[in-house]
Amino acid sequence: MAKMQKYLVETIIENKRLAKDPEGETIYRELINKGGYDEIISVRSGKYLRFVVNAQSQEEAEKTVYKMCNDIRIFNPVVHSCKIIARGKIP
Amino acid sequence: MAKMQKYLVETIIENKRLAKDPEGETIYRELINKGGYDEIISVRSGKYLRFVVNAQSQEEAEKTVYKMCNDIRIFNPVVHSCKIIARGKIP
Repeated sequence: MAKMQKYLVETIIENKRLAKDPEGETIYRELINKGGYDEIISVRSGKYLRFVVNAQSQEEAEKTVYKMCNDIRIFNPVVHSCKIIARGKIP
Repeated sequence: MAKMQKYLVETIIENKRLAKDPEGETIYRELINKGGYDEIISVRSGKYLRFVVNAQSQEEAEKTVYKMCNDIRIFNPVVHSCKIIARGKIP
């Protein structure tokens, strides 16, 4: 059995592309346009979660987080997309 | 003058390491422990913002977002850390 190690797994939960994103739109309209940042084309907001997971491999760590995110309904699959990114071992 | 192109820049705003993170703690305690996910060691929550920026280079895109995040007080430097990551060109 492989040794257990700590892995960093990041999760980004966003509204789906076609769903409205009031927070991002507000930042875009109110703040960026007022400040004259014409080079900003779009802003989308989301939720960020960082997990430290004990696992035997990066794939296992990623799977654990994926399973958990679905199990505990950390996002709503109807309106949110959930991206899970393993970022490797933690020394 | 170099051609303007679209760049993807991601921003993650988190409570500083030593600051409390009630949302992350709640997820950890209530949901993960109840569900029996003993392999999860920690959870930290944060805010995710994705910008599409017109710029001549990735460095310029990153700088624009950095400047804007500080200008418009999108985060509170006393309690938040703000990580800005350029993710390259958008085709």
